[in-house]
Amino acid sequence: MKNYKIILSYDGGRYNGWQKQGNTENTIQEKLEGIVSALAGSPVEIYGSGRTDAGTHAYAQVANFHMEWNKTAASLMEAINERLPEDIAVRSMEEVNPRFHSRLSAKGKTYEYTIWNSKKPPVFWRKYVFWCPKPLDVEKMRQASQFFLGGHDFKSFCANKRMKKSTVRKIYEIQFTCAEEKITIAYRGNGFLYQMVRILTGTLIEVGEGKRSPQEIPSIFAALDREKAGFTAPAKGLALKEVFYGEGRENA
Amino acid sequence: MKNYKIILSYDGGRYNGWQKQGNTENTIQEKLEGIVSALAGSPVEIYGSGRTDAGTHAYAQVANFHMEWNKTAASLMEAINERLPEDIAVRSMEEVNPRFHSRLSAKGKTYEYTIWNSKKPPVFWRKYVFWCPKPLDVEKMRQASQFFLGGHDFKSFCANKRMKKSTVRKIYEIQFTCAEEKITIAYRGNGFLYQMVRILTGTLIEVGEGKRSPQEIPSIFAALDREKAGFTAPAKGLALKEVFYGEGRENA
Repeated sequence: MKNYKIILSYDGGRYNGWQKQGNTENTIQEKLEGIVSALAGSPVEIYGSGRTDAGTHAYAQVANFHMEWNKTAASLMEAINERLPEDIAVRSMEEVNPRFHSRLSAKGKTYEYTIWNSKKPPVFWRKYVFWCPKPLDVEKMRQASQFFLGGHDFKSFCANKRMKKSTVRKIYEIQFTCAEEKITIAYRGNGFLYQMVRILTGTLIEVGEGKRSPQEIPSIFAALDREKAGFTAPAKGLALKEVFYGEGRENA
Repeated sequence: MKNYKIILSYDGGRYNGWQKQGNTENTIQEKLEGIVSALAGSPVEIYGSGRTDAGTHAYAQVANFHMEWNKTAASLMEAINERLPEDIAVRSMEEVNPRFHSRLSAKGKTYEYTIWNSKKPPVFWRKYVFWCPKPLDVEKMRQASQFFLGGHDFKSFCANKRMKKSTVRKIYEIQFTCAEEKITIAYRGNGFLYQMVRILTGTLIEVGEGKRSPQEIPSIFAALDREKAGFTAPAKGLALKEVFYGEGRENA
């Protein structure tokens, strides 16, 4: 059996997230498994690098699966793309080491959150941004974001209150890009808790609106209490941008 | 009565074009007239700079209407935007000379057609581009487009076979922009016939695919026959980018 690594783009707008769980229908994983299993002639399980929330997008989700295929990886990719709906696409496919696992081998990820900061409605971007009509103080948001860097217990920024495993994560870099009406915040870290990027972003937006000061952030961490952090920014502004593997990158 | 000029953006995807005609429902004009008439308390007619086809978008459609309004233009714009669906937005509004008419005063327009030229599906752009998976020869397309410049009888590029008025139009400039997977062709001219930009683009695509040579274009013009030109590129790749008024620009 060959082990294939794929990179996927999807518009999460009409899906219940990446992962099928219990009775959850209409997930991206399920869509993909149906197609690959049909091509394989037997059930194939697809392993994603991690879940993405309902409504969240991906420029480059990574997944892998084991399958017999006599032709090239390119021909398999083409066969899958022909069968996928137009809001999901495989961008690349390669045969990898049998031990490669998209989640277990991952060293970290970059998520991107996009805010539309203008009184003018985001007509063409409405499905990919969170619209904040009032001007945000990006400098203050940047200051606040500095407190997120490094290793911390992110319990206050985790939506899963019954999380039993460690809530310690490390954020390597947070980058702000302002282009016309858009403010994009890219978070690069070794892993992210349930809705963590959306809660971090909601907290930064409240700082940008002047409802909180950047100096409040350490006390939010110290509280270890979800209630102390900001709101959960909507899923549609969020996209998984990169999953990285191998050496060298994680501390860069 | 004040005369208001508005600039509008819309995602034409779910509309039957700009203009209500006979029994055509679900047009952008109708949507807007409903809202403005309700604010005015009496029927208001909205004059657009021209029709856009069903499914075609606009970054900057221009329209005008006459209305009594005691507050600022900005407050009227806000009131309209609050009531519009999220795929239509008024970008600017100003009170203008009573004689201004968005269509009759217009000196010309720029339309933009976007082609997605990549084997990889346009996941996030799928509603705003026409997808051509095979590589296009852009240099050949550019050569062919040179024959469109200047004043011509564009009858071969007009979908209305029973057009009784003049089919002579002038194109001032055609600009190609290639950015990653996207080829954008901007056409600036004094006016465009029914589906003319889409037929010009379809013809250029056939040149790009090698099905026609650039040197064929003069004979297409000479035939005065729609059948001789290329296919009608789909509406969703087309957007009205600018309507221009006043002096100086049209020959620039």
